[in-house]
Amino acid sequence: MRPPHPAPLARARLLTSPSVGPAVVRELERITDRPAEPAYASAPDGPFVYVGGALPEALRNPGLLWFHSVNAGTDALLAAGPWPEGALLTRTVGRMGERIAQYVLAWALSECQSVPEHTAQHARAEWRRLPSELVAGRTAVVHGTGRIGSAVAGLLRACAVRTVGVCRTPRAVPPGFDRVVRAGSDEESAALADARWVVSALPLTAATERYFDAARFSAMRGATFINVGRGATVDMAALEAALHGGTVRGAVLDVLPDEPAGPGDPAWRLPRTVITSHSAGITAEEDVVGDFAACWADVARGRTPALAVDTGRGY
Amino acid sequence: MRPPHPAPLARARLLTSPSVGPAVVRELERITDRPAEPAYASAPDGPFVYVGGALPEALRNPGLLWFHSVNAGTDALLAAGPWPEGALLTRTVGRMGERIAQYVLAWALSECQSVPEHTAQHARAEWRRLPSELVAGRTAVVHGTGRIGSAVAGLLRACAVRTVGVCRTPRAVPPGFDRVVRAGSDEESAALADARWVVSALPLTAATERYFDAARFSAMRGATFINVGRGATVDMAALEAALHGGTVRGAVLDVLPDEPAGPGDPAWRLPRTVITSHSAGITAEEDVVGDFAACWADVARGRTPALAVDTGRGY
Repeated sequence: MRPPHPAPLARARLLTSPSVGPAVVRELERITDRPAEPAYASAPDGPFVYVGGALPEALRNPGLLWFHSVNAGTDALLAAGPWPEGALLTRTVGRMGERIAQYVLAWALSECQSVPEHTAQHARAEWRRLPSELVAGRTAVVHGTGRIGSAVAGLLRACAVRTVGVCRTPRAVPPGFDRVVRAGSDEESAALADARWVVSALPLTAATERYFDAARFSAMRGATFINVGRGATVDMAALEAALHGGTVRGAVLDVLPDEPAGPGDPAWRLPRTVITSHSAGITAEEDVVGDFAACWADVARGRTPALAVDTGRGY
Repeated sequence: MRPPHPAPLARARLLTSPSVGPAVVRELERITDRPAEPAYASAPDGPFVYVGGALPEALRNPGLLWFHSVNAGTDALLAAGPWPEGALLTRTVGRMGERIAQYVLAWALSECQSVPEHTAQHARAEWRRLPSELVAGRTAVVHGTGRIGSAVAGLLRACAVRTVGVCRTPRAVPPGFDRVVRAGSDEESAALADARWVVSALPLTAATERYFDAARFSAMRGATFINVGRGATVDMAALEAALHGGTVRGAVLDVLPDEPAGPGDPAWRLPRTVITSHSAGITAEEDVVGDFAACWADVARGRTPALAVDTGRGY
């Protein structure tokens, strides 16, 4: 997590993956004041900075000073092989917190306001009043209290929803939350029982794999489960059982353990569930440029960027 | 708009319409400390207070001290005949502002987050990323700056939407709005051109009939039109032309000039439109009881209730 030494950084080459669009490449050249080169099949001689999605095996070598990921999640990147020692890893968050928060609020309000039912009635030219449910005073339990969990909680709280955060080591209450409880505690179980919505904004790590298991789902009493984190944090068989049993009222899943889901994937047949094809936290080109520029400004001053990833912890 | 005189109010009978449920009737008896009687085909002798939806012809006489409507809109009531002179009219608003605000936000966010498209893709078991649009910094122009318009603006502003109110006589900026402009002014046209959403929370009066005409719709530049006010404030032919022409991006209509819409109503065939069967501002029984109790407390002190309707102005 330490920034690269200034001397090698000053002469480092800038490499970009083919997935980075030309408008972004031009901005990266402007920020770093050097030409960008397409990624090589073999690593270049000497130090280099790389911007892209995945990190090719050929570039996992000691010349890599810094890899800036165009994505927020780095689990696939870190799982693909050992991380080159000493290389800084930063990621793109952009307005992802804001996007994901609006996604969560959109789906929560849509359910309360019967948006899908009204849309279906309209298609049948059917005039029938439908009930609505007010969100104010209901409780959302948000797992993950980092940037994204905080953004989700903050927007829900702006609509007078009570917000409880769940994390491994509660310290100060992060922005957006009314309170935080420790994962696995009795307070967490009580919060799950009280929840109208349970939102997961968890990263995938060894500690969060199948975190949402039968015990958590059966602690719920009719919550809608919204997953904007990672699919593998959910035991899908336990979710299915809870949907059938009714402890989970419905599910909105932006992520699945296996993506993309093929037409035969059993997840499509879960009752009262909508799958949204990993669309909640789309990264725009301006997000990549803005976050890289912020990281560059820190690194140039010898500081560790706020968007640096602890490659041991995984987020 | 003056409250009834205390002496006749003290001996007034309490009449309720058959549409008022038994739980509400019991609460009305408790609040007024007198038995409720079903409405008569002919008016009772002496003074009376009436609680209901419509006001039967037989009860439109000088004995009527006060009519409390179980609805928020009083246009149909006032259009049905001359208002009995001196009779107080109050209405039920309840949590309608909050309900309607959540309705507007739900539909605005649903469009930005492609909720109907995701739902349709899910039904086809199709995995495909869809783009999303952030609401922050976009502009909503809300027509009507009373309780409901204010509630709508306040919730949108909580999501960082810029809120412009439009009213006939702008005075102080009401809660929820960044600014207000005068209906029919150049400032209104400029706001409509800038709007991502145009929301109508207008009551129906002589001044607002067909208020949304060709001029207003053609001043828009791709706004989504959301009507939570009254259907007859819209020139439907002008809306249809604007939807075809593209100055209106889409429409969410909770209300129509003719309700309920039959299956053959041409409104169902408007492009990019959803009709929601007058469901946005449902009145719950607790709303009727709460608002009547507040009015009773004012009237008993000789004060005009905040929920009194100016029967000349119509709201």
